[in-house]
Amino acid sequence: AQLSLERDYETQREYDTRFRVLMENTTEAVLFVSVLTGEITEANSAAVALVDRPLESLIGNQLSGCFEGRKRGDMVDALASQAISDMNNKTKADLRGNGGTVQIYPTLFRAAGERVLLCRLVPENKNAVRADALT
Amino acid sequence: AQLSLERDYETQREYDTRFRVLMENTTEAVLFVSVLTGEITEANSAAVALVDRPLESLIGNQLSGCFEGRKRGDMVDALASQAISDMNNKTKADLRGNGGTVQIYPTLFRAAGERVLLCRLVPENKNAVRADALT
Repeated sequence: AQLSLERDYETQREYDTRFRVLMENTTEAVLFVSVLTGEITEANSAAVALVDRPLESLIGNQLSGCFEGRKRGDMVDALASQAISDMNNKTKADLRGNGGTVQIYPTLFRAAGERVLLCRLVPENKNAVRADALT
Repeated sequence: AQLSLERDYETQREYDTRFRVLMENTTEAVLFVSVLTGEITEANSAAVALVDRPLESLIGNQLSGCFEGRKRGDMVDALASQAISDMNNKTKADLRGNGGTVQIYPTLFRAAGERVLLCRLVPENKNAVRADALT
C-alpha cells in the first residue's frame, strides 16, 4: 500500500510538473480563480509582471482586487456567465495601480467538483508587452 | 484503501484537468516531446492548426517529422542542448508541407524520471496567426 501511494504521488507530481512548466513558459498572463471564493489560486510569471504585484499578493486574494472599480463577487460571477455565453468572449478591465487596460478571456471548468475560472489577461497594447516577455 | 485510491485519482484528474484547460486555452502552439524517444506526447489545438496536421498524426510521432530536412534524434538532442544553454534560446525551422517558418523555444524538464522537452512554436509572421487564433 505504501508503494502504491508513492507511485500515485509520483504520477500526481508528474502532472503537476507539466502544469507548472507550461504555466511558466507561456508568454501569456494566466490566472486561475475559484468561482466559489473569488480568490486567485494560481498565477504565472507573465501575470505577475502584467498585474505588477508580487505572487504572494495575488495567490489567495480576490481577483477583483487587481482591477479598478470591480466589486468582490460581481466580477467573478460576470466572468463565469460570460465564459459560458457564446456572444461576448472577453471583458475589458483596468488594472489597479499602473493603470493599464487588459482584455480578460475567461474559461469556466470543473476540477474536483469545484468551479474554476481560467483567465487569460491580454494587454491592449499587447505587442509591446509580448516583445518584452520573450527575451 | 479503496477510498484513498479514489481520492488520489481525483487529485490526479484535477491536475490533469487544469493542464488540459491551460493547453487548450493558450493561443501559443505547444508540443511536449520525450527526449528519450523523440516522440510528441502532447500537442494543443494551436499546434495542430500551426503544423497543419491532425492530432492523431502528431501524438506518438517524431517531432522531426514535422519539419523539413531534420534528422530523427538530432533535432531533439539539439533542442535539449539549446534549452540548457543560456546563449541561444530559440531555433528556426521550416514546417513540412505548408512551408511556414517557426521559431522553436525549447524548455527541458524532468517528470517521473524522464527528460521532457516543452516546445513553443512561434510563427515568424506571428501577429497574423495570433489574430486568427483569438477569434
